Amino acid sequence: MQLFWLSLLPCLYVTSLCTAEQGLEFPSFDGKDRVLHINERNYKKALKRFDMLCLLYHEPQPAHKGRQKQLQMTELVLELTAQVLEDKDIGFGMVDSQKDAKVAKKLGLEEEGSLYIFKDDRVIEFDGEFSADTLVEFLLDVLEDPVELISNPMELRAFERMEEDIRLIGYFKGEDSYYKAFQEASERFQPYIKFFATFDKTAKHLSLKMNEVNFYEPFMEEPAILPGRQLSEMEIVEFVHQHKRATLRKLRAEDMFETWEDDLDGIHIVAFAEEEDPDGYEFLEILKDVARDNTNNPELSIVWIDPDDFPLLTTYWEKTFKVNLFKPQIGVVNVTDADSVWLDMSNDEDLPTAEELEDWIEDVLSGKVNTEDDDDDCIS
Amino acid sequence: MQLFWLSLLPCLYVTSLCTAEQGLEFPSFDGKDRVLHINERNYKKALKRFDMLCLLYHEPQPAHKGRQKQLQMTELVLELTAQVLEDKDIGFGMVDSQKDAKVAKKLGLEEEGSLYIFKDDRVIEFDGEFSADTLVEFLLDVLEDPVELISNPMELRAFERMEEDIRLIGYFKGEDSYYKAFQEASERFQPYIKFFATFDKTAKHLSLKMNEVNFYEPFMEEPAILPGRQLSEMEIVEFVHQHKRATLRKLRAEDMFETWEDDLDGIHIVAFAEEEDPDGYEFLEILKDVARDNTNNPELSIVWIDPDDFPLLTTYWEKTFKVNLFKPQIGVVNVTDADSVWLDMSNDEDLPTAEELEDWIEDVLSGKVNTEDDDDDCIS
Repeated sequence: MQLFWLSLLPCLYVTSLCTAEQGLEFPSFDGKDRVLHINERNYKKALKRFDMLCLLYHEPQPAHKGRQKQLQMTELVLELTAQVLEDKDIGFGMVDSQKDAKVAKKLGLEEEGSLYIFKDDRVIEFDGEFSADTLVEFLLDVLEDPVELISNPMELRAFERMEEDIRLIGYFKGEDSYYKAFQEASERFQPYIKFFATFDKTAKHLSLKMNEVNFYEPFMEEPAILPGRQLSEMEIVEFVHQHKRATLRKLRAEDMFETWEDDLDGIHIVAFAEEEDPDGYEFLEILKDVARDNTNNPELSIVWIDPDDFPLLTTYWEKTFKVNLFKPQIGVVNVTDADSVWLDMSNDEDLPTAEELEDWIEDVLSGKVNTEDDDDDCIS
Repeated sequence: MQLFWLSLLPCLYVTSLCTAEQGLEFPSFDGKDRVLHINERNYKKALKRFDMLCLLYHEPQPAHKGRQKQLQMTELVLELTAQVLEDKDIGFGMVDSQKDAKVAKKLGLEEEGSLYIFKDDRVIEFDGEFSADTLVEFLLDVLEDPVELISNPMELRAFERMEEDIRLIGYFKGEDSYYKAFQEASERFQPYIKFFATFDKTAKHLSLKMNEVNFYEPFMEEPAILPGRQLSEMEIVEFVHQHKRATLRKLRAEDMFETWEDDLDGIHIVAFAEEEDPDGYEFLEILKDVARDNTNNPELSIVWIDPDDFPLLTTYWEKTFKVNLFKPQIGVVNVTDADSVWLDMSNDEDLPTAEELEDWIEDVLSGKVNTEDDDDDCIS
């Protein structure tokens, strides 16, 4: 285990070690180069050749060996992703921010380390966990239709259960109607924000009027309503932008860094709760109550993290934030230095009530509870 | 990208490529050796030294370079897992099935490629996806208490929502009661089967009598009941073994290979359905109906796979089984050669009814629909 590259190797996994049965073979990289090195000569051809083109905009080849290997690993993640999605007509490429600066400018690539997906005439930026799992799932989502049709009560139930996601639903006459503007708007947010439409009486259950669009913030029972009239694509887009920062939002692998960058004055209120755990579930229900009561406060956006979704980060968080993640926790994190302060919930039997939580959140928003003042008690 | 090891590298992922914010740093292997090479001289000491010891029982050092690298990668997954869990007092080791045959025999290691976890006086076999994510999550689950206490209506709701899992709940006087036998039984199934207990009136909502234990098969509304009397650990264990192969079971990363090995006469009935997708959700509801109607048929066990849980296998399955996984599918898979036959659901608008599905399943169980007979139509 002394090879140099090992010291840089991030997490990875291995195909099944021993099994006589067939049907569950995890892929391992076959060594074939599929990722293109994009430059001025080949970028137009690449854009034409594939239904979808994914370009990683990366820092110039670093002098430091460690960072060189890191870049190699990144390319490998792309190679494996390309291999897995080989039959889906998706191209993959790397764009060097120095050597290929001209191409990058032409293509509008800006953030080093981001993956840009070119599909039809739009560009989707991926700023999530850079793992083959997450990337493959993300790209498969991008391949699906951007609007899902809801046509019976069971499908409506599926829609209603997706409380963690930002989702819109519109009621239209049919494919040839104002639905077109809705569909075009949906493409701008795919796959981060989910769009649904119905052409039939399913709309009645939602009390949707013809051409009306409803926007559901995560965990909210009542939608924000865009009244039924001749809506343009831009009106819908504008409406989404206006509402999309949720009062309570779940950290997701596919856009975790983007969410984290969207801090409020340099801090995040972070809640850890394992939904599968009775305690965690109870705490989450209290959090939802608080979020519902405060949905109109633009200053408030709580990031909910389910530790089950990020096993490799769990002990890192425990160390960095000095909390026990076997139990629910809520705290304030300063995103510039990861300094944090946490609500004292050491009495296991008594989770705070929604009122107590609201008082604490008020103290956070007023600055009374802050990360610079670690010695203060959170609840006095 | 020409290095030899790359051609063998399985999936892996990379730490955040570029972000100024702190708080979401994925770990990368620091190069420090933490995994022990277990032999006759050190195994007793290792067992004593750690609260928990995880031993990978592996094939002898292979002559073939490819398999050598595969083994190295496996060790790396263990190394990263060990690093992430460094503060949890868990030991990690490798046992060579040839060189360390004696130790292996003493420890009862049997299946090459399995990971054996020694905790207190019991051994837990891990036969799931060998990735650092899955391993870390699994081991964190093993560290938790094997029985969760339910003490209020909200926690009960959390329990009731876990319909995907096999779970038991018992009602006892308190910690010093027949609860002890229940707790000991729970340790034998942790973390695969979930055990819950209540000491208070929460039990009334479940109409549990004192000392009664209820077993919930996944997706079933009515539990199997072990009546309230002086239950021994072995009675509870026996009861679990009797009921644990579910009529409808979800494929989970942590025991996917074990589930797959538990085929019925060399075949699995496999259903693909994305729960987050309206179509998938609807199909799953139909499947649940079928499972509830046939829960007493020991010949029937349907494996439900949510493609969202296995992004890297999705296109492999599409190729191997020649199905489109953007839509729900149900079929029969022969586990010896992965040959398969699928129910024709090409009419997108009409999912089969529960009755149609039951007819097809009957045809599967009677052998009328089988994987050797690919030219037959599934629905005639």
